[in-house]
Amino acid sequence: MSVTVKVRVPGTTANCGPGFDAVGIACTIYNELELTLSTLGGLSIEIEGEGKGSIPTDEKNIVYQVIHSVLEAVGKKHQGIQIKMVNQIPLSRGLGSSAAAIVAGLVAANAATGNTLNKDELLDMATAVEGHPDNVAPAIFGGITTTVMLGHQARYLRFVPPNRLRMVVAIPDFNLSTHAARNVLPSTVPFKDAVFNISRTALVIGALCQGEFHHLRYALEDKIHQPYREHLIPGMQQVFDAALDKGALGAAMSGAGPCLIAFAQEHCDQIGAGMVEAFASNHIKARYLVLDIDTEGAKVIGN
Amino acid sequence: MSVTVKVRVPGTTANCGPGFDAVGIACTIYNELELTLSTLGGLSIEIEGEGKGSIPTDEKNIVYQVIHSVLEAVGKKHQGIQIKMVNQIPLSRGLGSSAAAIVAGLVAANAATGNTLNKDELLDMATAVEGHPDNVAPAIFGGITTTVMLGHQARYLRFVPPNRLRMVVAIPDFNLSTHAARNVLPSTVPFKDAVFNISRTALVIGALCQGEFHHLRYALEDKIHQPYREHLIPGMQQVFDAALDKGALGAAMSGAGPCLIAFAQEHCDQIGAGMVEAFASNHIKARYLVLDIDTEGAKVIGN
Repeated sequence: MSVTVKVRVPGTTANCGPGFDAVGIACTIYNELELTLSTLGGLSIEIEGEGKGSIPTDEKNIVYQVIHSVLEAVGKKHQGIQIKMVNQIPLSRGLGSSAAAIVAGLVAANAATGNTLNKDELLDMATAVEGHPDNVAPAIFGGITTTVMLGHQARYLRFVPPNRLRMVVAIPDFNLSTHAARNVLPSTVPFKDAVFNISRTALVIGALCQGEFHHLRYALEDKIHQPYREHLIPGMQQVFDAALDKGALGAAMSGAGPCLIAFAQEHCDQIGAGMVEAFASNHIKARYLVLDIDTEGAKVIGN
Repeated sequence: MSVTVKVRVPGTTANCGPGFDAVGIACTIYNELELTLSTLGGLSIEIEGEGKGSIPTDEKNIVYQVIHSVLEAVGKKHQGIQIKMVNQIPLSRGLGSSAAAIVAGLVAANAATGNTLNKDELLDMATAVEGHPDNVAPAIFGGITTTVMLGHQARYLRFVPPNRLRMVVAIPDFNLSTHAARNVLPSTVPFKDAVFNISRTALVIGALCQGEFHHLRYALEDKIHQPYREHLIPGMQQVFDAALDKGALGAAMSGAGPCLIAFAQEHCDQIGAGMVEAFASNHIKARYLVLDIDTEGAKVIGN
């Protein structure tokens, strides 16, 4: 006897400039996960797309570990586990591939075992594994989320802007681990830099909620993480300048990078081409994607 | 020959917990200013209500200085100036009395001289005099504003929440100068405190924009100014606790204090009484006001 569930989880871009560890947006790029639980026992993991050949296919696999922890929580840990992943989200680039993997495992295992956990519980579990809620919240709920931690519990607010907002993501051809990108951050910041980011975070959320996207150009400015990380992404400022020059509303690092993201309502391909060219002039090979905001979040798409 | 203009300007509450120097709300408490310009020359200043007997009635008066600077800018500096103020907004309590005075002078002088300055120019002028835009923006535009500085220019976004939100302001019987309250702030803050405030600021703005006021309880928490100022306001935490205990959605310092503000949709008088009682148990005499969000901002009400 076996049960099979298929889920789809969006990639996410976090921070949005000043909103460090607080703001996240679900994007129309997806990982799919097909999970089969059977009484036969055993483990098999197949991976297609991003991560094929590099993601572990044994007990070290994070998706397996998450599934196993759910099965343990609901008293079904002795089931056989068959995992098939089809990944579009590039790894370690700042598009929430790790959050998507964690959420996919949680949602699939929960669905396959009778949906005993609600989405808020899934958020807390995913946050515990990921370490912070800013990618996992939009991966679960879709849209744009702002999150805070109350002790070990995450609280989130979700919204979708009233006007269409597109995202042009330039994906350079190198990885940057979130761990490495966090290690360069300072332990204290000037008071005025904190205030700079606070005022711009307020404006980013106001602009996104109200659809007043013209504010993004300066609202996306940041002083507490991007300047410390800039040396990890050669040409970052030139890529931002190229995006603005081609008509972007504003630009920022996507998560901990190295992807850079521009927000736009039109001229998306020109913006993407300009960003790739600016990377190229810094001897970095890159490609770009034009994405919309995903409004559905993680969902079961078949069983 | 003379021209008379009468204007009304709302009081404002700034910061809203984590949104230091960034977030402001116009409140339904007003100062009125009647300005008469005449070819006869001379200066007279009459004050009724708050500040009568303490606000200077000569060239040191800030309203006069602002009016004078506008007249100078538009080439009419030799006019006689007659000023009548009726002030409801208490002085130096964190309800934007200084911003209201500056805005009243600017708007009245501009209206009396043919409205040559637009509201964005008035915002920049008011910000230059006040030093920061978080009170002057809502005083001019009404509603809730988020502001950032681009060099010497202020940019603002304005919105009004979709549901009614009331404010209960406890006004203790002592003054606190903004200057003194700024002097206790640190020059650097821990990175994690900056991130704490960034995430809560995002949530405050999201909650106010979307009308999801239940988030305010934890969204209003702050780590970068209130803890440093708490000793200036005896019983602050007890007043917050009393407000929450009586049904407030959340509570914060109003501006640089000493007023404390609770947000609520109901039970406003119980909340106000509880806040006053908590101040009393700390040997501080206080009163309370129940205010709504003013949505009109500064306006000419007669001439």
